[in-house]
Amino acid sequence: MSAQLNNRRRGARPAIAVTCGEPAGIGPEIAIRAAWALRDKVHCVLLGDAAFLAMTAADIDPDIRISSLSMMAVRNAGVPHFGPDRITVIDIPVSAHVKPGILDKENGRAVLATLDAAIEGIQAGWFEAVATAPLQKSTINDAGVPFSGHTEYFADKTGTKQVVMMLAGQPFAPDDAPPLRVALATTHLPLKDVADALTQEGLGRILDIVAHDLKTKFGIAAPRILVAGLNPHAGENGYLGREDLDVVGPAIAAAQARGIAATGPYPADTLFQHKYLKDADCVLAMYHDQGLPVLKYATFGRGVNITLGLPLIRTSVDHGTALDLAARGLGHADCGSMIEAITTAVSMADAMLNNQ
Amino acid sequence: MSAQLNNRRRGARPAIAVTCGEPAGIGPEIAIRAAWALRDKVHCVLLGDAAFLAMTAADIDPDIRISSLSMMAVRNAGVPHFGPDRITVIDIPVSAHVKPGILDKENGRAVLATLDAAIEGIQAGWFEAVATAPLQKSTINDAGVPFSGHTEYFADKTGTKQVVMMLAGQPFAPDDAPPLRVALATTHLPLKDVADALTQEGLGRILDIVAHDLKTKFGIAAPRILVAGLNPHAGENGYLGREDLDVVGPAIAAAQARGIAATGPYPADTLFQHKYLKDADCVLAMYHDQGLPVLKYATFGRGVNITLGLPLIRTSVDHGTALDLAARGLGHADCGSMIEAITTAVSMADAMLNNQ
Repeated sequence: MSAQLNNRRRGARPAIAVTCGEPAGIGPEIAIRAAWALRDKVHCVLLGDAAFLAMTAADIDPDIRISSLSMMAVRNAGVPHFGPDRITVIDIPVSAHVKPGILDKENGRAVLATLDAAIEGIQAGWFEAVATAPLQKSTINDAGVPFSGHTEYFADKTGTKQVVMMLAGQPFAPDDAPPLRVALATTHLPLKDVADALTQEGLGRILDIVAHDLKTKFGIAAPRILVAGLNPHAGENGYLGREDLDVVGPAIAAAQARGIAATGPYPADTLFQHKYLKDADCVLAMYHDQGLPVLKYATFGRGVNITLGLPLIRTSVDHGTALDLAARGLGHADCGSMIEAITTAVSMADAMLNNQ
Repeated sequence: MSAQLNNRRRGARPAIAVTCGEPAGIGPEIAIRAAWALRDKVHCVLLGDAAFLAMTAADIDPDIRISSLSMMAVRNAGVPHFGPDRITVIDIPVSAHVKPGILDKENGRAVLATLDAAIEGIQAGWFEAVATAPLQKSTINDAGVPFSGHTEYFADKTGTKQVVMMLAGQPFAPDDAPPLRVALATTHLPLKDVADALTQEGLGRILDIVAHDLKTKFGIAAPRILVAGLNPHAGENGYLGREDLDVVGPAIAAAQARGIAATGPYPADTLFQHKYLKDADCVLAMYHDQGLPVLKYATFGRGVNITLGLPLIRTSVDHGTALDLAARGLGHADCGSMIEAITTAVSMADAMLNNQ
């Protein structure tokens, strides 16, 4: 990450790649709005179709200026340090005309190309991190590329065996609440498959990744992780399932022996209380709907999705493409989560710089 | 419920039975504190060991006056209308000396006797409802009585085939948030058994009970119920499990055909948002840790547990016996949830009166 460090030493705003996601969704609009709102503090570099983004920007606000670059130019000379009076775009052209709200598989590969450009650019030192707008998995699959999600794609392309999905945000109350961070031991699995998917070794790897990334990407010297039990009441001593005794508990004990400040398993229904959360840096939930309802409730739709375990910083909005909103035209989408995703990426890049 | 109606017509404060739960836990303390705090509005009748309660009350505040009655006296003459200057106790004596924080199976049957007295008293018209302090299941089982919980005991003793557990409370934000109510389709099951426990018929009965009780016990003319999907993203069209298509969806459609305003299945992680909750009367979650973490987070430990489907009104605190707090002496327990349980019972009794 030396190129990144050099960029920041010159006093430039941090450069963050923003992939615009599914072009027929709200991604282009929220990427432009967020980049424009943050332009004094962050050098957002939008990855997407330059012509479509320029037209969209003009419709949002005629004052928005766009400077677009080709991948070839950037490969030759890097990303120029434009000032905060414009948005930088690297042109990754779509193949078919974009009709907001209408998916077109012809554009699936262009969406993937924006992710490839983000990875290339982070590795080359053009960007310090990537924040992703939502894409539509079906468009990419329909284009003939097997694709199960952003997270898996970044893992695959960077040769990462295991990643961990974490959502984070600032609770809207109480005033002194620390950021709430919820990592997931399993993600997009049918509920009936969750129990069998958990192993002591797998949970151990996940705790290692969470602890490591909270240190290196969040600057938390000794991260405290509260681990939820799998079963209601964390299994109530085996009366409500054995997994908390046989799998989760031993994984926590082993992690503690490795010096990780993980504790639990705790009953999920009482764990998410301010009196416990105020002394914790992260909650590890065992599955999707155990951890995310409370995270999204607490952060009021301003959560950020962060992929832990990657050799790069990647954040994302916590919502989908909202094709219905996009179909109604500009002005209906809320760029709040996109702004949070970008500013979180900047904070993480700052923490990594301070950690070097 | 004519006896109840007659009581209220005479202008008396509503009479609510408060079972004091496990004597070695915080139940006696929070029952006394709550009854004393509410004495101007509610005629709480505590069911427990009169001598122990009198000693505990004297330690809490020497100003608290207690009038104790025997079950025999009440059976003969009903509960007298003492004024708000004292707490009424019906004496259900323990068998062994109570040591706070130390369980003693000798007292298990006395705890059960308080539940029996509450049921008898409601059926006889002495009380309009019962609010229960926490008990310790193991004490009762160790006393030789198979016992799986308050809820099941009340169902069994009243000949009720199906009950539904609902937790409710007032979210601490935003200011205009309506009460949050979360009913559970399954309760204390190992997670791996949840999917198989759901059937279309079973969900149908649960929706019927929730809709019926929201009408009759909460006075909501046409209750709107948001139903969470079982799987993450409500199964994403079958990609993340078939149950939402095959079981939950059809149960909702059938309930709609019966005139119930249930909708869904919705993804649980996005369902708990103010924009959806503000137009709903209840969420039906498929399992314990899908619904309760957010309910308890939102209500800040002031949730009330309500048993739907019974022929009587029963509310409860949403916490346990806290033996550790009890062992440290008086003054450590928070009676907030007990107060909420009693005032919720009163509101429900009011709604039933208005509904008659």
